[in-house]
Amino acid sequence: MQFSAAQIAMLIDGHVEGNGDATVNSFGKIEEAKAGQLAFLANPKYEDFLYTTSASIIIINETQELKQPVQATLVKVKDAYTAFATLLHKYQEFMTQQLAGIQQPSYIAPSAEVGENVFIAAFAYVGDNVKVGNNVKIFPHVYLGSNVTVGDGTILHPGVKIYQECKVGKNVIIHAGSIIGSDGFGFAPQADGTYKKVPQIGNVIIEDNVEIGSNATIDRATIGSTLIKNGAKLDNLIQIAHNVEIGSNTVIAAQAGVSGSTKIGNNVMIGGQAGIVGHLQIADNSKINAQSGVTKSIKTNSSRSVTGTPAHDYTSALRSQALSRNLPDMEKRIAELEKMIQQLVDERENA
Amino acid sequence: MQFSAAQIAMLIDGHVEGNGDATVNSFGKIEEAKAGQLAFLANPKYEDFLYTTSASIIIINETQELKQPVQATLVKVKDAYTAFATLLHKYQEFMTQQLAGIQQPSYIAPSAEVGENVFIAAFAYVGDNVKVGNNVKIFPHVYLGSNVTVGDGTILHPGVKIYQECKVGKNVIIHAGSIIGSDGFGFAPQADGTYKKVPQIGNVIIEDNVEIGSNATIDRATIGSTLIKNGAKLDNLIQIAHNVEIGSNTVIAAQAGVSGSTKIGNNVMIGGQAGIVGHLQIADNSKINAQSGVTKSIKTNSSRSVTGTPAHDYTSALRSQALSRNLPDMEKRIAELEKMIQQLVDERENA
Amino acid sequence: MQFSAAQIAMLIDGHVEGNGDATVNSFGKIEEAKAGQLAFLANPKYEDFLYTTSASIIIINETQELKQPVQATLVKVKDAYTAFATLLHKYQEFMTQQLAGIQQPSYIAPSAEVGENVFIAAFAYVGDNVKVGNNVKIFPHVYLGSNVTVGDGTILHPGVKIYQECKVGKNVIIHAGSIIGSDGFGFAPQADGTYKKVPQIGNVIIEDNVEIGSNATIDRATIGSTLIKNGAKLDNLIQIAHNVEIGSNTVIAAQAGVSGSTKIGNNVMIGGQAGIVGHLQIADNSKINAQSGVTKSIKTNSSRSVTGTPAHDYTSALRSQALSRNLPDMEKRIAELEKMIQQLVDERENA
Repeated sequence: MQFSAAQIAMLIDGHVEGNGDATVNSFGKIEEAKAGQLAFLANPKYEDFLYTTSASIIIINETQELKQPVQATLVKVKDAYTAFATLLHKYQEFMTQQLAGIQQPSYIAPSAEVGENVFIAAFAYVGDNVKVGNNVKIFPHVYLGSNVTVGDGTILHPGVKIYQECKVGKNVIIHAGSIIGSDGFGFAPQADGTYKKVPQIGNVIIEDNVEIGSNATIDRATIGSTLIKNGAKLDNLIQIAHNVEIGSNTVIAAQAGVSGSTKIGNNVMIGGQAGIVGHLQIADNSKINAQSGVTKSIKTNSSRSVTGTPAHDYTSALRSQALSRNLPDMEKRIAELEKMIQQLVDERENA
Repeated sequence: MQFSAAQIAMLIDGHVEGNGDATVNSFGKIEEAKAGQLAFLANPKYEDFLYTTSASIIIINETQELKQPVQATLVKVKDAYTAFATLLHKYQEFMTQQLAGIQQPSYIAPSAEVGENVFIAAFAYVGDNVKVGNNVKIFPHVYLGSNVTVGDGTILHPGVKIYQECKVGKNVIIHAGSIIGSDGFGFAPQADGTYKKVPQIGNVIIEDNVEIGSNATIDRATIGSTLIKNGAKLDNLIQIAHNVEIGSNTVIAAQAGVSGSTKIGNNVMIGGQAGIVGHLQIADNSKINAQSGVTKSIKTNSSRSVTGTPAHDYTSALRSQALSRNLPDMEKRIAELEKMIQQLVDERENA
Repeated sequence: MQFSAAQIAMLIDGHVEGNGDATVNSFGKIEEAKAGQLAFLANPKYEDFLYTTSASIIIINETQELKQPVQATLVKVKDAYTAFATLLHKYQEFMTQQLAGIQQPSYIAPSAEVGENVFIAAFAYVGDNVKVGNNVKIFPHVYLGSNVTVGDGTILHPGVKIYQECKVGKNVIIHAGSIIGSDGFGFAPQADGTYKKVPQIGNVIIEDNVEIGSNATIDRATIGSTLIKNGAKLDNLIQIAHNVEIGSNTVIAAQAGVSGSTKIGNNVMIGGQAGIVGHLQIADNSKINAQSGVTKSIKTNSSRSVTGTPAHDYTSALRSQALSRNLPDMEKRIAELEKMIQQLVDERENA
């Protein structure tokens, strides 16, 4: 898809300097852009690239003065950074809107209800009594089990699997390969050492505006619902166990895991590869650092962060870590003290 | 699917009190159940919910006395908890039995052999010479490579991929997106710094009654078999490397990883995000805590647990952790001693 | 597929001793091989198995002397280990070459360009303007988004998903379920506590000879490219965030994660479950141990390794760890010193 400098200027309320017919078909950073790409200059420290870049069109602040001639066509705006961001959003929106229609072969159960302006790709599977809202985009190899509902404007990337009875809200994005609603890990130990499966007959509810990365797993509740609240953002390869609740606008980085029945508050931040044990409460606004292992509830709503395994207060953890590296030195000091004191004792006895 | 109170009473050998025609179509917890849901009351501390719940039918102990009128229809049994669990099992069994037939489009190689009462969903791929037992349920987007065998009663959830030559036993459950039999991570370093792939021509054998979570990965052996023994339970996002053996009834929580050729005994418990290095032996009944990094074999069969990285005895690890947080205090004590002893030394010299 | 001893001898330049018509259809270790399998003997400590194995054909060194009669047919070569490895490579190559043709139903956009001798399995999805090179093997349930390119000889195992605009080089192997080009985890915090998605309009470039394990995730760049350089080897369940660069011949073990914009040099080795924070530089030849958490750049090109969280020099980390387990003992020594010094002080005061 191609845009001319004139079209771009119209979209972001700018004016063209140079060849208005110059066209671009993708985006680049000013320092590495190639011919046919659109770049922007907002940070003055990148100004030199303005004169050397191969970008075909560059968005710049109208206050930017030019010290040398520039080869690219310029689009001058009040705020280059914001204008570029606006353009990216419009571009993504446009690309998403392009997706429409029902490709073949796909499988849509006769009892399923599908909204308007929906994209259902080849090899997508829409099960019995599924309800798909308007403007939903369903990529190839997506599976929607019986009675699943998907709200308006939601995007399900290739290979997403949603088990029966789960509910996905509006304007949700789920990336490729993520699994919603697999059985919680529940087994009752038997006298003979074997385990008997505890049926997992709850579901997963994902509220509006949630984004979930690729190859994440969110298990259904034993009874009731595993709940991901409005606006939460989950990265790739995250594990959410049965009956967990993730609060609104909580952000969880890649490869972190939350064990069964733990309730995480709103606006919490959890670092990559962190783990949280089951049946805890994590207060609103808590911060959990990467690779931490949280073993106790965090009850006070504060933005203090915890770290380490078992996780504790970040500041004191840093001190312990520093001292822990000083252990060889501390050990030397103790040995020295022992020598000195032995000398004093010996002297006293010889006195 | 709907059940009446009378039907439920029949299934669990109970008797109805109230409207026998009341119906339910799903399950709920007594404290949050809605109209149309079935709940149970076993724990006396939840008794108050009996009088306020919206559940349409409630299973209760026949010894339960009522202090107030109850709106829901009651089904009275000897043991409400066991009766409810029985019902869940019957329900899951029933739902699984409903799945039958071969949906189109699916791909079944002419040389494949498929048993009786099998469900093969649309977009499932059954390769050359595959053998599928009776009552097997194969969901959409499952891939079975050449010569794979799948035993009776096994359930393969959407998107499970099983590479060629692997063998899956009876009554196994594999959740969505899990990969069985991908190549082990074997590369021979070359003189020029590159790596040459070591062909991985073994397979994976999964014995009976195993359950594997979603998006787990189990690599095929270099030669021979990676082996998951009878009744083992593996959670989501678990990594099992080539030539590993997992013992009977061993339970591994989410995001844990086992490196190549390690042999894990029976009835071992491994916590979430734990890692075990390669070529170790882990004795029967061992317990490995969450996030531990096991670097040495555990040779004695005992139920003592290890923790930390590198993992060591749990009790002593707890003490070290506690002291480690006391390091600032220990450091202060050393400084104090140094001051005192210096004073003594000074006094002696001045004497 | 069956081979006779005579055929095998021809492939590896050996000569047959025993029944040249003996056939095998798979490989085994000499200590556990069954009838119909091919094994080899190179290590003298396994010689006893030569007389007891059920293998039908065994490759041995021509210098090997026999102390007892051997049932299997022997194929004698100069170097049994190398001959066996050669055979495995030829076998894998042969098996791969067997895959050819376009199975139905598959989806190939009319604008896609497909090379010669390509395998495209049933349920594979090849999007608009995709370019697939010669000898490429595309397994079932693979998704290639618009404008993706795949170089000659590359193998994409079942369920691999490659988002639009990504580029995959020659002779690359990507295992089942891995996701290439999902959106980077980029969100701008808003004044009301919500997050606004930052569009991710870059791509992923995977150079030649790379191998990627199963269920790994590699996110596209915000702008520009996430880059996996020539010959890098990535294991299962690995997370590579947006704008990361992985150097040539770098090896990363399972479940490790690299955060956004970090640049990893060539010939680096990263252990399983390790994590690296964002915006770092890791020098060529660095070694990062399993489960480490790297929080600072490693600037010097050396083969020293780091360990722990936060990661530091391996040798000093080992000492700290050892001392850390000695903390109860150190604490006892301090208490003893305190007692002794108190006694000295008391004596002095009583003097």
